[in-house]
Amino acid sequence: MTIETALDDRTFTKHESEVRSYCRDWPAVFDTAQGSWLTDVDGNRYLDFFAGAGALNYGHNNPVLKDALVDYIVRDGITHGLDMSTRAKGEFLETFAAKILEPRGLDYKVQFPGPTGTNAVEAALKLARKVTGREAVINFTNAFHGMTLGSLAVTGNAMKRNGAGVPLVHTTPMPFDNYFDGSVEDFAWFERVLEDSGSGFNRPAGVIVETVQGEGGVNVARPEWLRGLADLCKRKDILLIVDDVQMGCGRTGEFFSFEEAGIVPDIVTLSKSIGGYGLPLALTLLRPELDVWEPGEHNGTFRGNNPAFVTATAAINKYWSDDALSVQVKAKGMEIAQSFEDLCQRHDGLSHRGRGMVQGLAFDKPELAGRTCEIAFSKGLLAETSGPDSEVVKLLPPLTMSSEDLAHGLQILSESVDEAFAADTAPEEAEA
Amino acid sequence: MTIETALDDRTFTKHESEVRSYCRDWPAVFDTAQGSWLTDVDGNRYLDFFAGAGALNYGHNNPVLKDALVDYIVRDGITHGLDMSTRAKGEFLETFAAKILEPRGLDYKVQFPGPTGTNAVEAALKLARKVTGREAVINFTNAFHGMTLGSLAVTGNAMKRNGAGVPLVHTTPMPFDNYFDGSVEDFAWFERVLEDSGSGFNRPAGVIVETVQGEGGVNVARPEWLRGLADLCKRKDILLIVDDVQMGCGRTGEFFSFEEAGIVPDIVTLSKSIGGYGLPLALTLLRPELDVWEPGEHNGTFRGNNPAFVTATAAINKYWSDDALSVQVKAKGMEIAQSFEDLCQRHDGLSHRGRGMVQGLAFDKPELAGRTCEIAFSKGLLAETSGPDSEVVKLLPPLTMSSEDLAHGLQILSESVDEAFAADTAPEEAEA
Amino acid sequence: MTIETALDDRTFTKHESEVRSYCRDWPAVFDTAQGSWLTDVDGNRYLDFFAGAGALNYGHNNPVLKDALVDYIVRDGITHGLDMSTRAKGEFLETFAAKILEPRGLDYKVQFPGPTGTNAVEAALKLARKVTGREAVINFTNAFHGMTLGSLAVTGNAMKRNGAGVPLVHTTPMPFDNYFDGSVEDFAWFERVLEDSGSGFNRPAGVIVETVQGEGGVNVARPEWLRGLADLCKRKDILLIVDDVQMGCGRTGEFFSFEEAGIVPDIVTLSKSIGGYGLPLALTLLRPELDVWEPGEHNGTFRGNNPAFVTATAAINKYWSDDALSVQVKAKGMEIAQSFEDLCQRHDGLSHRGRGMVQGLAFDKPELAGRTCEIAFSKGLLAETSGPDSEVVKLLPPLTMSSEDLAHGLQILSESVDEAFAADTAPEEAEA
Amino acid sequence: MTIETALDDRTFTKHESEVRSYCRDWPAVFDTAQGSWLTDVDGNRYLDFFAGAGALNYGHNNPVLKDALVDYIVRDGITHGLDMSTRAKGEFLETFAAKILEPRGLDYKVQFPGPTGTNAVEAALKLARKVTGREAVINFTNAFHGMTLGSLAVTGNAMKRNGAGVPLVHTTPMPFDNYFDGSVEDFAWFERVLEDSGSGFNRPAGVIVETVQGEGGVNVARPEWLRGLADLCKRKDILLIVDDVQMGCGRTGEFFSFEEAGIVPDIVTLSKSIGGYGLPLALTLLRPELDVWEPGEHNGTFRGNNPAFVTATAAINKYWSDDALSVQVKAKGMEIAQSFEDLCQRHDGLSHRGRGMVQGLAFDKPELAGRTCEIAFSKGLLAETSGPDSEVVKLLPPLTMSSEDLAHGLQILSESVDEAFAADTAPEEAEA
Repeated sequence: MTIETALDDRTFTKHESEVRSYCRDWPAVFDTAQGSWLTDVDGNRYLDFFAGAGALNYGHNNPVLKDALVDYIVRDGITHGLDMSTRAKGEFLETFAAKILEPRGLDYKVQFPGPTGTNAVEAALKLARKVTGREAVINFTNAFHGMTLGSLAVTGNAMKRNGAGVPLVHTTPMPFDNYFDGSVEDFAWFERVLEDSGSGFNRPAGVIVETVQGEGGVNVARPEWLRGLADLCKRKDILLIVDDVQMGCGRTGEFFSFEEAGIVPDIVTLSKSIGGYGLPLALTLLRPELDVWEPGEHNGTFRGNNPAFVTATAAINKYWSDDALSVQVKAKGMEIAQSFEDLCQRHDGLSHRGRGMVQGLAFDKPELAGRTCEIAFSKGLLAETSGPDSEVVKLLPPLTMSSEDLAHGLQILSESVDEAFAADTAPEEAEA
Repeated sequence: MTIETALDDRTFTKHESEVRSYCRDWPAVFDTAQGSWLTDVDGNRYLDFFAGAGALNYGHNNPVLKDALVDYIVRDGITHGLDMSTRAKGEFLETFAAKILEPRGLDYKVQFPGPTGTNAVEAALKLARKVTGREAVINFTNAFHGMTLGSLAVTGNAMKRNGAGVPLVHTTPMPFDNYFDGSVEDFAWFERVLEDSGSGFNRPAGVIVETVQGEGGVNVARPEWLRGLADLCKRKDILLIVDDVQMGCGRTGEFFSFEEAGIVPDIVTLSKSIGGYGLPLALTLLRPELDVWEPGEHNGTFRGNNPAFVTATAAINKYWSDDALSVQVKAKGMEIAQSFEDLCQRHDGLSHRGRGMVQGLAFDKPELAGRTCEIAFSKGLLAETSGPDSEVVKLLPPLTMSSEDLAHGLQILSESVDEAFAADTAPEEAEA
Repeated sequence: MTIETALDDRTFTKHESEVRSYCRDWPAVFDTAQGSWLTDVDGNRYLDFFAGAGALNYGHNNPVLKDALVDYIVRDGITHGLDMSTRAKGEFLETFAAKILEPRGLDYKVQFPGPTGTNAVEAALKLARKVTGREAVINFTNAFHGMTLGSLAVTGNAMKRNGAGVPLVHTTPMPFDNYFDGSVEDFAWFERVLEDSGSGFNRPAGVIVETVQGEGGVNVARPEWLRGLADLCKRKDILLIVDDVQMGCGRTGEFFSFEEAGIVPDIVTLSKSIGGYGLPLALTLLRPELDVWEPGEHNGTFRGNNPAFVTATAAINKYWSDDALSVQVKAKGMEIAQSFEDLCQRHDGLSHRGRGMVQGLAFDKPELAGRTCEIAFSKGLLAETSGPDSEVVKLLPPLTMSSEDLAHGLQILSESVDEAFAADTAPEEAEA
Repeated sequence: MTIETALDDRTFTKHESEVRSYCRDWPAVFDTAQGSWLTDVDGNRYLDFFAGAGALNYGHNNPVLKDALVDYIVRDGITHGLDMSTRAKGEFLETFAAKILEPRGLDYKVQFPGPTGTNAVEAALKLARKVTGREAVINFTNAFHGMTLGSLAVTGNAMKRNGAGVPLVHTTPMPFDNYFDGSVEDFAWFERVLEDSGSGFNRPAGVIVETVQGEGGVNVARPEWLRGLADLCKRKDILLIVDDVQMGCGRTGEFFSFEEAGIVPDIVTLSKSIGGYGLPLALTLLRPELDVWEPGEHNGTFRGNNPAFVTATAAINKYWSDDALSVQVKAKGMEIAQSFEDLCQRHDGLSHRGRGMVQGLAFDKPELAGRTCEIAFSKGLLAETSGPDSEVVKLLPPLTMSSEDLAHGLQILSESVDEAFAADTAPEEAEA
């Protein structure tokens, strides 16, 4: 049976649930990928400005990682290891400690909570509650932390929350940085309700925050805001959880996105690009004094995804033995920002924001963001929208993208924006 | 830096959280594996009667799957695909439909909810609640469904539940089959509270059940009990969810563990061995009329783990094109049962139960179960306990284990049981 | 303006919410009452077999209590006292201790939680949770404990639960005595799930139980069942709360309904007839070692309803200085039971049950219970139905009802039952 | 037995729970009362500036109401009527409609939810949830709505919330008027989170608000703020509940405290002074189109407290047939405010606020508020503190207090404040 000849949309519409989403925006059947490029079954090539929503910081099928992975598989390295001690895990732990934690003065214990971001978040929330004996958690407007019930309760998106089928409780959102365009003092509300014993707030176990909200619309927290938050948590004896699932692993420049602010969270979650090759892996990092878990109190069948340990180790060795990648990320981030700035000069109703290689182009008319991505796709570029009204074109290119590819992609995007605006104006002119 | 020479327990105790568990029982650093055997960094070999808690039904690094996987990686097949349409996913869907669903007269839609069992369960619970507009869910005593908040609420283990840090609500346990040793009529309580408008039960959206409770102590539901449950759900308009994460993919003989009972659940969860090679993958199967998801209403970064689609497809083609594996599983299951029966004849305070290749040996003295596993490990056999008091030695060997290996393992286990009993009796004799 | 001439149904249908209920069954406008009789604005008289749902154990406007009340009001005794110390409260406390608690060897501390039964239950549940640090509470099938959210969560009736508007959680119902007609061992399920650490039950803070479920259909717990429950609670370190709001104050014979079983609950709630005259009052009694309340941690504006203290004291002095009332209640209870037994002999599909002066006549055809009450009303008797399907005619006459009135009422009821059955059979005969 | 000679503190400390509170601040055993004065068992008289926390707006044992009450009792008027139609209830309904609702253009249906404020609030919250199908409710910082679980969840005080023993969920506090001293735009946060589909707020069923927060520290909402809130609720389709339990019945001048703002809430709760004489009574008023209750869906044994209907009717006829009382309340309110203003001029660290005859004197040093009340008590004046740190002396005198008594009380209070400040300064001077 040669199934592949039949592969088109019908396979997926017939067999797969209506819950599928990206495939609706990018109606192609993808086959292979290398670096920043994907190829579909018809041989069409696409430049990737989305990179697995941040899971492919080192590009598709990165050759260095690929070699390590194939070697490991060929030599019959353990594939599935639960939480048994394995060579691959041991080497990852030693490498992560030596190359990532120690140079940054961090002494986190590492928990492997199951290989997805939402699992890392669930473990973080459980631990914060267990340590403090409190149930409440503070999250932020437009946060995204995952789809399982614990993580969903700290996620902002109303459509996704409605999917829970039960009321999501024990969580209270606070305004993220700049939620009021600077008109309200940072933490005025948060600090006030903590100090006021009559405020009616349930005293929180912890605060969970993204330094840059990707799904929320590329909302960037200023370093001083993050420091203010860390300071508030410290003064009020509340645990600070940084969810670095999407913004960690160099996306914003440094390995951890919170390094720029000079803060040390109590708990950190990592996933997406920590495996390096796009293989499922997740970590919950905890200050040693918080490591009060009972053996097996949180577990998961795939928490020891050893091939991902191998590629994770290779990625760290390759990209985090010096600061070359960080320097590049910052430089390329500025290129993107410059391109966006040019677009903003050219069009009204457009603004941009971002940090490192997560950059957003925000449209006053949300439909133009979607239209831009559609046009870009037709020109062979993958880019996605985010934000509560899908009003922001969010770029998450591979950190390893070449300058030529980056320039090429930005050129396509620039044309797409121009065309989206032109199409938007045209009818009105016609009416005039 | 040659890290590997330093790999011993200290790496893990220093860097890894106290939450780790299996590594405590099996104090070795494993390196490679093939079929039913693992090898540690010192060259010691271990026969595997646990198989990744059911994630390695086709053995470690199964050569057929390995070839497909390496080929896919070498040719730069898409690794990480979110929920984009890919060749690997399409081929999996076509193969799963053609070889698994259609021959069984099933027309489930397939949801990829994120690559772990708990994610599949969370999606199933969400959907049941969304479809019915009710919050309550019925679970069973000694159930195990996962560690994220939604799944944990339907899990029985008190230690794991305590880890939640918030009260686990919206769920009510019912007695699993044979909970009262046959002295109470099946569903007497469940049916009565549903019929009695004054019972105080919140009307449930769904029931979630394992056909054999692995973590719960190898508790086997009889086919007639499962039919009774399915019938009750149908009469009372409650959705029936079978969690086949551990018992599916042939563990009990047929592909789905509920086939023997002749029931068709509304929703089915699969994970563990569905990927075939031990790579993270999970499916939530739903009757087409239940597919009311909004696009993206449940998502997850690693829901499109394409290498796992490749090995999953290869596994189905290899093992589920005919009924040879099913036949073997039943035969080997009987061999294990026979060996257990012999042990029970030899020792008081011992009983056994199981279905297909999930078999449990239950000790009246729970400590003897743990002691048996310790002795077995010292003899080169991996086996684990389960049950609320860790009183059951639970066997989950690879379904593909050779008869020689199976006999060898059962021999070791048999000796280990004998020694455990001997050691238990010895001190008392000494005292006498 | 002479409003009274206009008083008919229209006043109430126009101004009062649709939530009103008793007035629909008894379509009269009542004006005065004395002892066991009510009179409506048109001068019609009604014999009261309902007695304010148990709030008028000493009859309407009992002369002894009335004298004390009028004297108190006339001399300007404190009416509203919050929880200030007042003479009326002090005299009540001393009298309650001397006449009720001490003779029974009880040393409860008295809490005035607000003047309604639901308030007493809310205080009891809060305290049980506070003392134990646990959230879960066990209630029983067909329980009734009140309408505020905490009490409603332990109440069985589905219609009333649906009124909550939020999922009612933290509570799990257990089968009340004889729920399975004796076919299942008492506490088999309850004890088993407490002992099984894998059962998935949240360990409860307390159990709340009525010794006779009035609203639930006059379900009588046997003394041995209550002793078994008390014993189980003690062994498992769970607090036992007896809700004696309806069954206390002599309704079943002794002052407390649990005396017959010889148990001593940890917490007891009293309301309804504790004020004696039908004035709002409620008590939560607690073992002294449980009195860990902070001052003001539970409060309520009307917790010091001093006129009710006065009538409560007068009632205790009058009726609980000796055992005359208890003896009478048992004797009259037997008269009612005998009358019911005669009816059961005469009609198929009829059974009866009860204790003291709470007696129920249960109809296999629920509609006959309602029809019986309608006919009785037309004959000048007030009686009500209870039970999940309103299938039980529930009698709660004043404990002080004269033998003549009781006989008269039973005669009316007897005729009403006969007529209800006759009307039920008639059409079928006509058809035949 | 002459119990009264023995009545002192020991009666209460021995028999009553530690939860008692006011009796600790006012260590006397009160006996009788008339108008604005209480007398203790030793004959000492106390001027009442607290009036049953607002339950005695017409003074203690008001002669007009007392006559009606005694007449009713003497003529054997129905005392306890569940929700049967009675003459007393009918006359109350007609009077309330004719004198209170109709002149104000209001067409509320009246629910009698049980005779306490918390019952009225529970009914209001249930109804808002039932009508909208949503669970979430917005409350305000420093709100007080009652002690049963539903009401407690919308109450701010941390100590009282901790008494719940379960996490209080489904509610989110918003900043009450002036919470940030005018530095933050009204409803900026509230409106923003409602409009932002990514804010993570659960869409609320309703908002519950006090126009003046008595327990919260005499925080007065400005009319324009209330109008803004009402407008926001209307635009966003959220039900507006005004809890007028303490501030209704003329406390702020008009009968309903929200009249001044010109708003019409969807639901209103009344209790405390609605009975007029300090007898338990409560009302939930609802717009007719919201009256979707099922018969009996919310009930309560004492919801028909007929003696309270009688005094309520008498109070309305006496005090609400014209606007004389309203005018007086405003005038006396200004006298209190003037006295407070004088004190603020005289002392640093003192401010005042209030509306009508609820007036607060706020101390920067909370302990001075308590000290002031202690001194006042020693001088024969009853006054209490409120606010999250008990930093506000809160005056709630009877609305009917004579000018002489008011002046006398203010004189005592003024001296008490002076002495409290003097004692506070003295030691510091001594140290200097």
